Amino acid sequence: MTTNNSITTAPEIGLDTVAELAAQLRVDSIRASTSAGSGHPTSSMSAADLVAVLVARHLRYDCDDPRSPANDHLIFSKGHASPLLYSVFRAVGVVSDDELMSEYRRFGRRLQGHPTPVLPWVDVATGSLGQGLPDGAGIALAGRYLEHRPYRVWVLCGDSEMSEGSMWEALDKAAYYQLSNLIAIVDINRLGQRGPTELGWDLDAYAHRAEAFGARALTVDGHDLAAIDNILTEAENIPEGQPTVVLARTVKGRGFSEVEDSPDWHGKPFPPDVAERAITELGGVRDLVLRGPRPAPVAAADETAEPDKAPLTPPRYAVGDKVATRKAYGDALVALGDRDQRVVALDGEVSNSTYASEFARAYPDRYFEMFIAEQQMVAAATGLAARDYKPFASTFAAFLTRAYDFIRMGAISGVDLRLIGSHSGVEIGADGPSQMALEDLAMMRAVHGSTVLYPSDGTSTAALVEAMADTPGISYLRTTRGAYPVLYPSIRRSLSLDHP
Amino acid sequence: MTTNNSITTAPEIGLDTVAELAAQLRVDSIRASTSAGSGHPTSSMSAADLVAVLVARHLRYDCDDPRSPANDHLIFSKGHASPLLYSVFRAVGVVSDDELMSEYRRFGRRLQGHPTPVLPWVDVATGSLGQGLPDGAGIALAGRYLEHRPYRVWVLCGDSEMSEGSMWEALDKAAYYQLSNLIAIVDINRLGQRGPTELGWDLDAYAHRAEAFGARALTVDGHDLAAIDNILTEAENIPEGQPTVVLARTVKGRGFSEVEDSPDWHGKPFPPDVAERAITELGGVRDLVLRGPRPAPVAAADETAEPDKAPLTPPRYAVGDKVATRKAYGDALVALGDRDQRVVALDGEVSNSTYASEFARAYPDRYFEMFIAEQQMVAAATGLAARDYKPFASTFAAFLTRAYDFIRMGAISGVDLRLIGSHSGVEIGADGPSQMALEDLAMMRAVHGSTVLYPSDGTSTAALVEAMADTPGISYLRTTRGAYPVLYPSIRRSLSLDHP
Repeated sequence: MTTNNSITTAPEIGLDTVAELAAQLRVDSIRASTSAGSGHPTSSMSAADLVAVLVARHLRYDCDDPRSPANDHLIFSKGHASPLLYSVFRAVGVVSDDELMSEYRRFGRRLQGHPTPVLPWVDVATGSLGQGLPDGAGIALAGRYLEHRPYRVWVLCGDSEMSEGSMWEALDKAAYYQLSNLIAIVDINRLGQRGPTELGWDLDAYAHRAEAFGARALTVDGHDLAAIDNILTEAENIPEGQPTVVLARTVKGRGFSEVEDSPDWHGKPFPPDVAERAITELGGVRDLVLRGPRPAPVAAADETAEPDKAPLTPPRYAVGDKVATRKAYGDALVALGDRDQRVVALDGEVSNSTYASEFARAYPDRYFEMFIAEQQMVAAATGLAARDYKPFASTFAAFLTRAYDFIRMGAISGVDLRLIGSHSGVEIGADGPSQMALEDLAMMRAVHGSTVLYPSDGTSTAALVEAMADTPGISYLRTTRGAYPVLYPSIRRSLSLDHP
Repeated sequence: MTTNNSITTAPEIGLDTVAELAAQLRVDSIRASTSAGSGHPTSSMSAADLVAVLVARHLRYDCDDPRSPANDHLIFSKGHASPLLYSVFRAVGVVSDDELMSEYRRFGRRLQGHPTPVLPWVDVATGSLGQGLPDGAGIALAGRYLEHRPYRVWVLCGDSEMSEGSMWEALDKAAYYQLSNLIAIVDINRLGQRGPTELGWDLDAYAHRAEAFGARALTVDGHDLAAIDNILTEAENIPEGQPTVVLARTVKGRGFSEVEDSPDWHGKPFPPDVAERAITELGGVRDLVLRGPRPAPVAAADETAEPDKAPLTPPRYAVGDKVATRKAYGDALVALGDRDQRVVALDGEVSNSTYASEFARAYPDRYFEMFIAEQQMVAAATGLAARDYKPFASTFAAFLTRAYDFIRMGAISGVDLRLIGSHSGVEIGADGPSQMALEDLAMMRAVHGSTVLYPSDGTSTAALVEAMADTPGISYLRTTRGAYPVLYPSIRRSLSLDHP
């Protein structure tokens, strides 16, 4: 095997070097998977050229300062391509070859089978397909509407996951909110886990769908480095207030002739002898270390101030007065929003029922209407939370079941999500069981690290909403439709919801 | 108020009569909602012309024989328009005016706030938006591939619910399976619960999306009876193997000038004085009773035979042999499929992991690949179950969380769904938490009437799969990835999973 040693730090890295990088990413994806005895080398190899061009010439990211607000964001919505992502981390010098070879997919280590934010360069956990793009839309919302920063959100998507309706909810909302800072790159290698995808290499079909949902669609040969570079440059030009979807025709297992375009190698590491042949064909192990384009420094004034911890003025209710806890939620959220600029609210087109409407009226700049798309609502909240905002997302409690996989993944992302479900229980009998939240307590309690709250009156609701602002993990507030007597006098002391 | 009495039974009902019918449906929707003190009259009124033309001149349905296999199917995906549906039932003579006026939305009565199959003319429960069309795709699958019958599945959709990704999963699968027997009619009244929809009256935007997803899109003025009639006739012409989406521009509250196109009346019954003015403007209470086009009788030979109850030949494993329960599931399902022609299987593009692949290989005509669209997988199973098939739907247990709202609604539909989740628990540690089903037991147990099964070995898995075939409601089998020793000798006696 050959070994090339070169270090490149120039912002403009030539395509010859990018080709070397792509080969290195493939080789390292193979090595990591073979060493772990599991993983997805062929799904990584199909996207290696796309990612090499992106990282070397377009992604503005300071790996030494992953918290920099100026950084672009890179999400692997196809989280099973983790070998490729971790190979990028090696190529930019933040993960050692030793870690990649000995800790990938090992118990208790950070290079998990699917990426999570335990790694400082990962924003959100992926691995349940169809979630990375919806999450990315949430980050893009933060960038455009709250942070007012020019970062871009790049999302590498698989073609199989385009079957998930959530991907189209994401594009729909990205277009509605004119998220030109969101760029999806779809790795169309035509092969899913068990065989061909629905649309195969029909890039036109994907393009029609993306355009119909309001995105700009660009198609490219995903293995032509110069063409990819041109397309990504075009994607960066964002005159139209539209998200961009780059549709790249790729070959699974690209770079190793024995497995290219074969349906038989999904999710299988190469046995050592096969890996050896593959690495030889790809030119051997390399030790290229590079720096992609760095972002321009962000002026200190752009930094968002720490939230003001001044005491808030919670709503006060007289004992015995009839107050619906959903109404108290709206009142309390308005009070909280006044104190803390990081509080944002989302709702699934029922804000006049959940009383998120009160927040929307008070702080229209911090309210995001998600229409009837509960999955995207929770995903957007996840993205906003990844940017350190404090999202409160509400709908009828019954309809949070629609987003259960997203709530589950939010817990794995380690984000703090505040979910509010109204009209809980059988109280709304006349509407029928479809509108009744009966499963919500079990569902929410089963989420790792969750906090489930079911206040009995307006005063306790107000206290719990304030406490939720500082509660880690997934917290869930269950509210009731009807107005019932206030039981507790208003209190001044803040609650804290610490987990044991 | 005026009262017209006329009975029409001719298959060809003139448009003058249809106009009378539409007025009656509006008046009855208003009367039912006002009498109940809740309901959605304005959302019913926008669709009244569409539904009047459909019921009077296109829907082939014998109301006296709702179980007839020749019947078309009518699903209100916008289930909140239940006043309209129940007014149709009155207009065709199967629900009395007294029942409509005194039992709508009353405790314990069948005219619930959102339709459920407690009514013999309702196939599936709706009310969680975005599910009626996916369910309808399941019924259309049955009609085209299993029953081989010419019935059509008509689905009335709201425009707000087109924001749910599940609607696009449904159209995607309907196009993939060439379900030209599926006709969606979208009531585009531009107003959701709290205000304007995302796309308003932009019918072209909807049409582009529907076409991009492989459907034929037809647009129409939803209040022009002759135009509607022409479009529905065109929709019935199905040369292309495509589903059809009729996009109808409508006005919320149409027919009562005080509320037309107003965003302030969603989900609000008219107070009695307002109702009186509305009914007067609409020409008063009518007593039109009609019969729409009846289906041609189905030859007896078309009837599917009762399932053969001969003893099956279950897989047999030797005690001590290592067998994964997921593999035993595949083996047992093949044995079951041999005995019972009503057993069908679906999977979410992981059949080689769940071992649904064994069934797919043995009975390709009874296997439906749903790709990575778990919501549509469960919805299709719901539709198939509504047609008395016995669906077994499988994916990684973790990803059944994606379909939780559909599972919940399946229980309300009263269908018997058999769900199989593989790779449960922490065993697949190297893949990371996103792939681990940890919430599944709590989630499934919380579903009304569910049966949760977690077999310890291959023998018990085989026995439980056989028992699931005759288990009512939602049954869930949790399987494990790894192969472990068989504990029990094979048994001959069948299990029965009766609920206490």
